[in-house]
Amino acid sequence: MNLPIGIFDSGAGGLTVLREIAKRFPGESIVYFGDTARLPYGDKSQDTISRYTHQCVNYLVTFPVKIVVIACNTASAYAIHSLKDKFNIPVIDVVAPSAQKACKTTVNGRIGVLGTAATIRSGCYQRAIHAMLPQANVFPIASPLFVPLVEENLIAHPATELLVKEYLKPLQLEKIDTLILGCTHYPVLKELISKTLGDSIQIIDSATCCADTISLTSQNKTETPNYQFFVSDDIERFQRLATAFLPSNLLPLKVNLIAMD
Amino acid sequence: MNLPIGIFDSGAGGLTVLREIAKRFPGESIVYFGDTARLPYGDKSQDTISRYTHQCVNYLVTFPVKIVVIACNTASAYAIHSLKDKFNIPVIDVVAPSAQKACKTTVNGRIGVLGTAATIRSGCYQRAIHAMLPQANVFPIASPLFVPLVEENLIAHPATELLVKEYLKPLQLEKIDTLILGCTHYPVLKELISKTLGDSIQIIDSATCCADTISLTSQNKTETPNYQFFVSDDIERFQRLATAFLPSNLLPLKVNLIAMD
Repeated sequence: MNLPIGIFDSGAGGLTVLREIAKRFPGESIVYFGDTARLPYGDKSQDTISRYTHQCVNYLVTFPVKIVVIACNTASAYAIHSLKDKFNIPVIDVVAPSAQKACKTTVNGRIGVLGTAATIRSGCYQRAIHAMLPQANVFPIASPLFVPLVEENLIAHPATELLVKEYLKPLQLEKIDTLILGCTHYPVLKELISKTLGDSIQIIDSATCCADTISLTSQNKTETPNYQFFVSDDIERFQRLATAFLPSNLLPLKVNLIAMD
Repeated sequence: MNLPIGIFDSGAGGLTVLREIAKRFPGESIVYFGDTARLPYGDKSQDTISRYTHQCVNYLVTFPVKIVVIACNTASAYAIHSLKDKFNIPVIDVVAPSAQKACKTTVNGRIGVLGTAATIRSGCYQRAIHAMLPQANVFPIASPLFVPLVEENLIAHPATELLVKEYLKPLQLEKIDTLILGCTHYPVLKELISKTLGDSIQIIDSATCCADTISLTSQNKTETPNYQFFVSDDIERFQRLATAFLPSNLLPLKVNLIAMD
């Protein structure tokens, strides 16, 4: 059956994942849901993050969709196992694919991870990396201001430069050769992060890794795929933010509001 | 009847209001509710802010309480009229008292207002000031990064200094003589704001103004008032943040979790 791909994120950051999926599977229709009324997830508790994620994925599967992509690192960190148990369609996360790519990329086994407070606290990246590369040294850093800085579009601001330096300082001492950007907002800061750490460090972007992992048993070939966007709050803000994450041909013409509480 | 005072905020910022109320009414018991599972309110829509605020105040009045204080500027901006209509106990907000104080303070009639994106967008301060002082010139500035900077405890960081300068730049040109800090987190940045704008500018802090407005028909005189704290998420984070807003004798020993969705 010609079902769409479902993508869930706490807000607009997951649009970076949508962009990569649309690039690899141009014939597939997509339903995107952003829980903008309750974002950010990154500084909330395990129970709350898991409950919110399940509520939103319950909504996505009603379309129905043939696969669910959890595009939010924090939601992946706390809800991926219970989601996989609950639904009998494939549930793809952003954590495992990035960890796998980092393990294949690193030469010296020293891997940095940037993420929200909740993602880092969960230890999900540390576990995923050690499962594949037990001797790896993992250096996790919570960088909670990166999301508000990106959402305020202060990408090139001197204050952002200062904060990036501040957060990355411990990583510079640890001689990492690979860095995972463990939050969908962070690729927007990739250039600045790369400049701060030096070009020799390999940067792993979770949106790209996640899209690379998806394999579809039957692919749609339509030339006019249908993209639907749903948020739980503030359509205009979402549309404005979308311009930071999507190329103009993918920008949502229409966004629908669905209250989640 | 010896009922407590109810205080509502989207998170921990309203503790600045609790502190001022406790100072003025040391014999009163207090029930504080912070909707930490869904914060911040400051960049959400009118409908969502109003719905969340009503849900939380519905909970507070079940204790019951003799008065409700809406300690969050954004919630005050969007829900105060409907709350006053709905409940037959006094509902106090933070916006009207601050606007009133600013009107009494200004000499040249040029008043700046700092607030979250939603508070500024609502126009609540502009309306409240013009109702009292029609000839006033009001200069509203949304400064959405101040809350995450305070929550990250980067009060004295050079990046915070840069961002304060950036947000205040338009106000420096407008020759204001009075500035309203229209968010309960901002008093923590008062010194930096004052240094940036110059000492001659009068700074109005909404927590103090709000507490000054409260008059109780019957006051409790107990020497052991009971303070109860409720949050919708993450007790430890709330307790950690409380240290930035409360003196040590008021710090919550116990915080209770109540899911709101």
